[in-house]
Parts: sequence; C-alpha cells; structure tokens
Amino acid sequence: MKVVSTSKSHGGIQGVYSHASEACACDMTFAVFVPPQAKDGPPPVLWYLSGLTCTHANVMDKGEYRRLASELGLVIVCPDTSPRGPDVPDEKDNWQFGCGAGFYLDATEQPYAQNYRMYSYITEELPALVAANFPVDMSRQAIFGHSMGGHGALTIALKDPERFKSCSAFAPIVQPSTAGWSRPAFEKYLGADEKGWRAYDTTLLVEDGKRFPELLVDQGTADGFLQDGLRPWLLEEACKKAGIALTLRMQDGYDHSYNFISTFMDDHLKWHAARLG
Amino acid sequence: MKVVSTSKSHGGIQGVYSHASEACACDMTFAVFVPPQAKDGPPPVLWYLSGLTCTHANVMDKGEYRRLASELGLVIVCPDTSPRGPDVPDEKDNWQFGCGAGFYLDATEQPYAQNYRMYSYITEELPALVAANFPVDMSRQAIFGHSMGGHGALTIALKDPERFKSCSAFAPIVQPSTAGWSRPAFEKYLGADEKGWRAYDTTLLVEDGKRFPELLVDQGTADGFLQDGLRPWLLEEACKKAGIALTLRMQDGYDHSYNFISTFMDDHLKWHAARLG
Repeated sequence: MKVVSTSKSHGGIQGVYSHASEACACDMTFAVFVPPQAKDGPPPVLWYLSGLTCTHANVMDKGEYRRLASELGLVIVCPDTSPRGPDVPDEKDNWQFGCGAGFYLDATEQPYAQNYRMYSYITEELPALVAANFPVDMSRQAIFGHSMGGHGALTIALKDPERFKSCSAFAPIVQPSTAGWSRPAFEKYLGADEKGWRAYDTTLLVEDGKRFPELLVDQGTADGFLQDGLRPWLLEEACKKAGIALTLRMQDGYDHSYNFISTFMDDHLKWHAARLG
Repeated sequence: MKVVSTSKSHGGIQGVYSHASEACACDMTFAVFVPPQAKDGPPPVLWYLSGLTCTHANVMDKGEYRRLASELGLVIVCPDTSPRGPDVPDEKDNWQFGCGAGFYLDATEQPYAQNYRMYSYITEELPALVAANFPVDMSRQAIFGHSMGGHGALTIALKDPERFKSCSAFAPIVQPSTAGWSRPAFEKYLGADEKGWRAYDTTLLVEDGKRFPELLVDQGTADGFLQDGLRPWLLEEACKKAGIALTLRMQDGYDHSYNFISTFMDDHLKWHAARLG
C-alpha cells in the first residue's frame, strides 16, 4: 500500500492511499479518515460507496463527514467506484458504464470479467487491506452510499447482514435491473440472462429472501433521477412486504448533488454511530 | 446577472452566478449562499476571499460553511480571485500571477491595468450587484479569506473599517510586498516603485496608520508556506505596535489546504456572527 497524501482535518487524519488490486487487476486508490479517538483504541469503520462518475475524492472533498466523524469516533473509508487504467476496458463518453460505473458487482462477461470485480474488491480485498493497515475494529462495521453507491451499500448489507451493524443510503438506485441508466451496464457486465442480475438488485434480493433489520434512506424530491432511475417507492414496497424497518425520508427541494448528501450526512453518521456502539 | 446554478443545501440555497464585470472588463462568476433565515428579513453578509489558483468553487465545494451559516443566518459570498477569459492577459503555467492570482489590487501597469482590478471589483462592483440581487443587510458586513484571500480580507478591512463589523483570516499572506511568491506579481501589476505597493500590504497599511479593532487569524504549523510566504509573526509584531487586538492561533499539525480551513470554519463563522449581531 502506498500513501498518496495525508492531511490533518478536524483533529483526525484524512489520507489517500493506493495499491495494486488483485480483484480488479489494476492500481486502485481509496481514502481513509481516521478520527482522533484511534489513539485510544481501534474505532469502528464506516464504508461509504460513491455514485456514478465519482472517484474516492468526491465525497472526501464535498461530503462534509469529518467534523462529526471526529466527534463520534468513526473511521470512514471511501473506495473508488470502478477499476481504472490504460489496460481496463472502458466506453469513453459513457458515464453509465465502465470507468466510474462499476456498480459494485463481479462481472462475468468478456472483456470485463478480469477487472470489473468491485463486489469482491469492496467485500474482501479492501477490508483485508484496511484491517491490516489502519486502526480499525472490524467487528464493528457499517455501510452507506449515494446513488449507485447506495445500491452498493444496500446489496452488500443484504447479502452479509452479520457483518454490518447498520446500513443507510442517500438517493439509492434500488432496482438497477429495470432502471434505464443501469440495465445496459448489467447486461454488459453480467450477460443477457437476468437471473444472474438478481444478486445485485436490492428489491430482488429482498424478494429472494435476503434481510437487513433496518434501513435509513434519504431522497431529495427535486432529484432529477427520482422518477426514472431511483424510484424509492419500489424499496418501500419490498421492505413492507418483507418486514424490513425502512425509514424513508423524502427531503423537500433537495437534488442529487453533494449539497443534498452533505446536508444529511450528520443524520447518517449519527444513525450508524448509535448502532456501532 | 445570470443564474448559473442553484441547489438546496442545509436548508438554504447555494447559487452560482455570472455577470459582465465593468471593473474587470470580462465575465465574472461568483457563489452566494442564502440561509433559510432570509425569508424573515435580510441577513448579514460575510465575504470570503479565496487563495491563489482558486475560483469561487473551491471554498464552495470544500469549505464546509453551509451547515453553520444556515444555523447562524449568514449570507456567504465567494467571489473569484481574478479576471479570466481569452482576452485577459495571463502567464500560463505561473500560478502566482495572472489568472487565479489577482491579489485583490487594482493594477496600474500595462497590459494588466484594464482587467486586473479586483480591489474595485470586490469593494464596489460586486457589493452593488449583491445588494441589488440578494436579500442582504448591507449595513452588517464582515470579511474573511484564505492565504492570498486572507491578504485581501485584511487589507480591505483595514482600509474600510466602518464597513466591516469583523475580519478574520486563515493562513493569510500578511506582507506580500516582501514574500517571494507575491513580490513579482506586485511589480508586474503595480510597477517597480514600491511606494504604490503599501496600499495592498497588511503590515505596511498598519504601519501607515490603518486600523481595525480586532482580528482572528488561524495558521497551521505544518503549512509548507509558513516560513517563506505567510510569516504570521510579522502581523503579530505590527498589531502589537499598533494596539490592534489580534487573536493569532497556531494550529498544531495543520497544513495549507481546505482540510485546515474547514476544520476552523465553524470558529470563524461564530466569530463573525457574534459581531454582526
């Protein structure tokens, strides 16, 4: 692991790191914020998964998580959203596929299957690297994310509810297998047989019996992707049927940007801190 | 004035606007945050001047001012740092001169005198535009800034202490006329006669009798520009001699970045809010 940069912030350290990823067969960059409490023992760790087009840097720059993470004593890990590099197959000018659009799944189709393995990267390789290199209590993990990263957080938590004490999302893509901006990517990554897509679709995972005790979701009413891409009512319906305690908050006048995320960041950090103990 | 974008944030509106500037003879862009309190009457206005290489966007994205500005009821105006555009003379690849490096002065030398008039822009043209287009109480103004923008805030407040209820700075350039990163710019903008530079140098303004009742300055000890460019001890000395109540806080381990600024943003907002009433 290589240290790209470190900088003191709100009493803790905001760092950026890179490493040669085995899962993604390329160099990967990620950000970790370590709060001042780490000197007294390993704090819990909260994973933040970002949305389409983002790198580790967007939420690090604009998410406004450090002040409260410092108060609450949370390590915040912000991974990249896809493999990157000259050898990684991509579709330039398509922001919904390829670089910046990994969708937190393991691709099965060529030529993507070698690099686009973000599910393995986020659930196995990066946690092992973080556990080995940072002061973190891996018995206390939580996960959240935005948009495509909300999809990532929800699907990952549903498939491993024992590992995460809590899960939340900002404006998540709750049914990527039917949304216009994600269907084409799913087909290219996972093939035409939609059975294989169910493992990466929140509402279908719930339909197939996966459970997480409670979820917090914030959604802006002025979000331009609300009607076609996000459709939180599909999650509401699935959770109602399954008995999952979903707190869905429609936030009046908020859009899809980091202005929305940063406004409700404090609420999400408090939600997770209360459950991480 | 043209609305570039608006987005709800922390209950207020973060907007970006552009206009044809007379002072700078080019189009200029700036950001304004209007807190929710504006619906009950015009709030006070706090000017934030940014540092070298920045536009209006850096502090808007990374400054973390909206949460508390919303609580305290402050309008925050973030101007650009220089004129820009194809017709504006510039030195490409020189980050200490030209675009992004206006130094908040009115240039007297050719070919810069037509565009590089940031002093007039910040003290006259933009306030008039803001007063005409936003809900602001112009009888309650305050000013702060970072680095080159700290220099801007201090010099502007010293020359017009009646207008500003308070002034503060993050890692300001306190004596630009002798600092290596600003001397060449001063010579190009203002000519070789250093007498003309005194009006744009905080310590020399104080030496020449300009006064501001009290100042708050934060400075990181791990700031790479501390010894050569910033030298807050020069301000300390000048304020001591002049009887200006300077609160200079050396912040252990902090660098020159927005991680430093955002960490102490709350303190500065509270400082100004207390004095703006």
